Amino acid sequence: MHIGVLGTGVVGQTISSRLVEIGHTVTMGSRSADNPKAAEWAASAGHQGFAGTFAEAARQGEMLFNCTAGMASLAALDAVDEGDLDGKVLIDVANALDGSGGFPPRLSVSNDDSLGEQIQRAHPSARVVKTLNTMNCQVMAHPRRLGGSHVVFLSGNDAEAKADVSRLLFEFGWEPNELIDLGDITTARGPEMYLALWVRMFGAIGSGDFNIGVVR
Amino acid sequence: MHIGVLGTGVVGQTISSRLVEIGHTVTMGSRSADNPKAAEWAASAGHQGFAGTFAEAARQGEMLFNCTAGMASLAALDAVDEGDLDGKVLIDVANALDGSGGFPPRLSVSNDDSLGEQIQRAHPSARVVKTLNTMNCQVMAHPRRLGGSHVVFLSGNDAEAKADVSRLLFEFGWEPNELIDLGDITTARGPEMYLALWVRMFGAIGSGDFNIGVVR
Repeated sequence: MHIGVLGTGVVGQTISSRLVEIGHTVTMGSRSADNPKAAEWAASAGHQGFAGTFAEAARQGEMLFNCTAGMASLAALDAVDEGDLDGKVLIDVANALDGSGGFPPRLSVSNDDSLGEQIQRAHPSARVVKTLNTMNCQVMAHPRRLGGSHVVFLSGNDAEAKADVSRLLFEFGWEPNELIDLGDITTARGPEMYLALWVRMFGAIGSGDFNIGVVR
Repeated sequence: MHIGVLGTGVVGQTISSRLVEIGHTVTMGSRSADNPKAAEWAASAGHQGFAGTFAEAARQGEMLFNCTAGMASLAALDAVDEGDLDGKVLIDVANALDGSGGFPPRLSVSNDDSLGEQIQRAHPSARVVKTLNTMNCQVMAHPRRLGGSHVVFLSGNDAEAKADVSRLLFEFGWEPNELIDLGDITTARGPEMYLALWVRMFGAIGSGDFNIGVVR
């Protein structure tokens, strides 16, 4: 599958490299066509990796990943031709972390709304699935690096889109019983607000290389 | 130890009964001295259980539990004589859930503040420790009912108070490696905002009889 990945930071690079590793082709999109990080990544990915603008990544991808910083995500998606989102699964892994006040960051949207909902409202023809935002990107892409059963949440209005995303998560190494479908896109408020706990657990644990599991 | 428990709902009753079970004496406090739920609970607890007003519970308790509904907690504590809080450990297990808009509830305070901080600011001479709010009360009081290692968070400004609370958690059945000290009382924002995820996990799992563990 050809997948468009918006974002050239560590999340975008880690997701893109994992997608290439499991056999997909990726166009990494950024604000400008000549972004050096995207070009360097594409060179490292060989014939499965391309770099382009946000609009080019969205055009070429059959499925899209939003790996931009959460506070920049709406602007990044505004740079895309709306027709290139039509009917496509848009996997939103971003968190609207506002670090302008120092660590720990606050959320720029929470409680009565979420970034996932904002993206779905701004682009109603896209099929937005919020997932993977509750862990660092190494764990997102390589879940078996952790020594036990842990969980990933899915929120979205379209059941078929969530099924498509689930299949991709299985390719990453996630197990079926590790996926928790929370419901429609409004449920993204839960995993997004969990970030306020995650950043403080990160501080207490001294590492981001963890995730939560459900104990019953 | 004589412990004052503010709140007569299912959380207050479960915590109070567990405290009695492990050998403590409890005064369950409520808005009025003749609250029937508190009287019934005290009768069931025998010579270790008493019922009274919020003020009486705070006066008699050497350590205090806030088990009131989060949106009523500040008012409940306002009914207490300030001198009866002086230097005492006040364990805040409440969540400021606003269900007026239906399920799932929103938080009435979050992101830039928390109930734990509001209580500490309103009662600076109390030593507030936020803990146990991230699970249902059966799991709070009987952690070994779940089949695995799971975690409880502590937030508070006073290290000695957190050590006192830790000892009480061990009496409940918590294991030392299951306690995560997040830091000062501002870190209560994390466990409180996690509730937005908890209520949606509750919906997806179909039971509140679970907790999260940390997988590394």
